Amino acid sequence: MNQTTRVPRGEARARLIEAARILVRRKGFAATSLDDLCAAAGVTKGAFFHHFASKEALGVALIDDWTETTGAMFAAHPYNSLPDPVDRLFGYLELRRQILGQPIADFSCVAGTTVQEAFETSVSMRAAAERSILSGNDHVRSHLVEALAAHPLPGITAESLAHLFQVAVQGGIVLAKAKGDASPAHEAFDHLERYLRLLFNRPA
Amino acid sequence: MNQTTRVPRGEARARLIEAARILVRRKGFAATSLDDLCAAAGVTKGAFFHHFASKEALGVALIDDWTETTGAMFAAHPYNSLPDPVDRLFGYLELRRQILGQPIADFSCVAGTTVQEAFETSVSMRAAAERSILSGNDHVRSHLVEALAAHPLPGITAESLAHLFQVAVQGGIVLAKAKGDASPAHEAFDHLERYLRLLFNRPA
Repeated sequence: MNQTTRVPRGEARARLIEAARILVRRKGFAATSLDDLCAAAGVTKGAFFHHFASKEALGVALIDDWTETTGAMFAAHPYNSLPDPVDRLFGYLELRRQILGQPIADFSCVAGTTVQEAFETSVSMRAAAERSILSGNDHVRSHLVEALAAHPLPGITAESLAHLFQVAVQGGIVLAKAKGDASPAHEAFDHLERYLRLLFNRPA
Repeated sequence: MNQTTRVPRGEARARLIEAARILVRRKGFAATSLDDLCAAAGVTKGAFFHHFASKEALGVALIDDWTETTGAMFAAHPYNSLPDPVDRLFGYLELRRQILGQPIADFSCVAGTTVQEAFETSVSMRAAAERSILSGNDHVRSHLVEALAAHPLPGITAESLAHLFQVAVQGGIVLAKAKGDASPAHEAFDHLERYLRLLFNRPA
């Protein structure tokens, strides 16, 4: 414990998580050092270890904070009040397209990036990434369950379609990073919308 | 230059790339240290710097080797000789599903993993990852161009559908890593096949 830091407990913790979010989206988890984090957050290493037992513990807190923040953002969006569940799915895709208007590092997924590195080396970070993906799944699955109740599709589950939304998000980010251009991610959402229109018989 | 290493030049280089492939797939690029690489390859640091000017140079060689190896594997597969281009696309997806039968680290994509970390911090590694994704794109695009020539789909390009295959591959890997289970990746290929069957009017 470090008694000399002047940063209030809650504030330093939040600043470290914010610094981690920015740095990890730009260069990954392993490449983000404790020195980087403390410098970016403006806190001492003592303050770091006052709040987190290890860099891994910060990684878990970072992903859980990400899950909470993004979950609240999607849950609060106006598309959720549309009466038709398929329209809600299209609204979600439209919001996803808007998010792609930002620089690539700003639409990179904290959970998707860190789990690429940590899936075998950190049990707790992998579990946090799974909670994050499941949270995203739950959000679209609730709309998919309603859509499939009204329009059943033999052999297709809400769960597998919910995964497909996440696959489009995560795969789109990887391609955008490789090409330095968000267009493959846009196209993936366009194809997913076209697939849903074919499945649910909802021509554009 | 290190004159003392007993490892023949070509062999040491190949062993370093092989060690990098194994380690980077398991824990990412930044977390793989030069010491890890040299220990796994059984070479000295002197031998490392005899072959690579930097860890970044190894990263580029690793991704380019990956592109060459995987490109040759897909190009050599029997599905390429099927007369119907849509059947070739289904053959590619079937091979992708077979690959998912391995442990997760063994179907993780070297290019997709490294670009998550390096897209902003290494111009040369991002460019290598782009070459890798483009190589994968070119492979399926050639079949898609033929399929679309026989069965035109207004508003849909071979390029955007080729990207969608890569999005399914990369996004499926991220979800498999998060869940510790390949099933979301399998489902993504099943959905992509169903989408292609709808688009090209090819019921299962």
